[in-house]
Amino acid sequence: MGLLGAIEAGGTKFVVAVADRDFNIIERDAFPTLDGKKTLDKVIEFFDKFDDIEAIGIAAFGPIDIVEGSRTYGHVLDTPKRGWSGYDFLGRMKAWRDIPYFWTTDVNGAGWAEFMTGAAKDVDNMVYLTVGTGVGAGIVSGGKMLAGYGHPEAGHILLQKHPKDTYKGHCPFHGDKCLEGLAAGPAIEDRWGMSAKEIPDDHLAWEIEAFYLAQAAVDYTMILRPEKIVFGGGVPHREVLFPMIRKSFAEQMKDYLATPQLEDYIVPVANGDNAGILGCFYLAESLLAEEK
Amino acid sequence: MGLLGAIEAGGTKFVVAVADRDFNIIERDAFPTLDGKKTLDKVIEFFDKFDDIEAIGIAAFGPIDIVEGSRTYGHVLDTPKRGWSGYDFLGRMKAWRDIPYFWTTDVNGAGWAEFMTGAAKDVDNMVYLTVGTGVGAGIVSGGKMLAGYGHPEAGHILLQKHPKDTYKGHCPFHGDKCLEGLAAGPAIEDRWGMSAKEIPDDHLAWEIEAFYLAQAAVDYTMILRPEKIVFGGGVPHREVLFPMIRKSFAEQMKDYLATPQLEDYIVPVANGDNAGILGCFYLAESLLAEEK
Repeated sequence: MGLLGAIEAGGTKFVVAVADRDFNIIERDAFPTLDGKKTLDKVIEFFDKFDDIEAIGIAAFGPIDIVEGSRTYGHVLDTPKRGWSGYDFLGRMKAWRDIPYFWTTDVNGAGWAEFMTGAAKDVDNMVYLTVGTGVGAGIVSGGKMLAGYGHPEAGHILLQKHPKDTYKGHCPFHGDKCLEGLAAGPAIEDRWGMSAKEIPDDHLAWEIEAFYLAQAAVDYTMILRPEKIVFGGGVPHREVLFPMIRKSFAEQMKDYLATPQLEDYIVPVANGDNAGILGCFYLAESLLAEEK
Repeated sequence: MGLLGAIEAGGTKFVVAVADRDFNIIERDAFPTLDGKKTLDKVIEFFDKFDDIEAIGIAAFGPIDIVEGSRTYGHVLDTPKRGWSGYDFLGRMKAWRDIPYFWTTDVNGAGWAEFMTGAAKDVDNMVYLTVGTGVGAGIVSGGKMLAGYGHPEAGHILLQKHPKDTYKGHCPFHGDKCLEGLAAGPAIEDRWGMSAKEIPDDHLAWEIEAFYLAQAAVDYTMILRPEKIVFGGGVPHREVLFPMIRKSFAEQMKDYLATPQLEDYIVPVANGDNAGILGCFYLAESLLAEEK
């Protein structure tokens, strides 16, 4: 059996790796994200060393076009990142070697790893929410990654403001109307004049943050009825947040719907820093499993 | 080939029908909803006349337990409706005849009909939202009816209030915090002191109603990326609402995400009053198709 490839294509850093079919990493490299062409040159230089790669999972920073059959399928869409808007990422890889590629977002990649072997490994329906520089979600419904007219952008759902929050918001599109504009790392930093890391555990900041994350969790629950909501990214590193999110979730849900016990329902990620790469391997493997 | 059965189990009225495998209705009956036992007596009396029913689709008023493997699967859950809380609806039917049953909510039944032959017949991903006495949603993702830890309750997502709306809300759980509490028929009537039918087209009521329905549509779009959002129920009979919902959707979405053209994206139902029964027949047929 051949090898699996992984490309974790982040906005600031690319990680590439090769593993055997048991997901043991054979070689791995990382480099800063340059423009589309130069970065892919380095990606291809890495994979060129391996003759027997059977499939590659690509988890890319967005927005990207994941709608099969679309004219721009496999491209990076409009982005402020220089040298990436309209870049045909998947086309470049296919021109290099025409093997199966799983093409999805970075959030979906990490979410898929949580679904396969992480915090949501025992369920069929889950939401993975990453709260860091932005807010993004990977959703699994009935054991499949949810996608429709593109990938979810569940970090931009519209929310009620916390009564004590007068912040003007940080989303260039939705201001203080959406989750990302109210609760992503840059919003926290801008609102309080200090980074999330500097804010003490007993600061009002966390009550407000928990309110927004809980409100989003209520909306995901109403719409998707997941069995698990997994929080990743930098902001949820603050452990004090979890009991606060669960408490606020109960207050906003008001006993309307049954969910699993909140301690088992609203949980942190279980995979460490390898989640992105791991997700790419699992996705690559899923393509080969389908072919069998 | 045998026959298909349909039970549209509404909170005030039951409709039962039998059709051939081409969905031509052979016989149909309707009667008021009594308590669980008495109503099912009448249902069974109707179906007893037909020896060759192969499968029955049941679309029932909620809340109901649709989680297979659950201890109360097939039961009606806690409801203020007398003689229904905990009633084993599906068990009663199975005890009568052990044939395949598709057991789902009334909203999912009507939504499935819209997906199969109605306004969403050309897409694989859609949201059907009914706005009447309550607000409910049937969701199809990747060609499958979405369900997780129960069926969606997307009528209770939490929303921002319209700046001109001072109404206290009508949801017994969420007050003025959720879609149903702000935008269902009883909320409109209570807010303005007249029924939705009496309110003229140019009244502020419709601007506010459109704002809430559009905001919900934005959230469904962010999370599910559907190709179509179909509005049914009594309230969207007011045709002036549709251009207003589309306009408000664009204002709240702020060009963040590509959607289909709004005229094709936010649309009224295409099936008439038969949608519920039709959905049951399609669901029954799907069980037999799977067996083939």
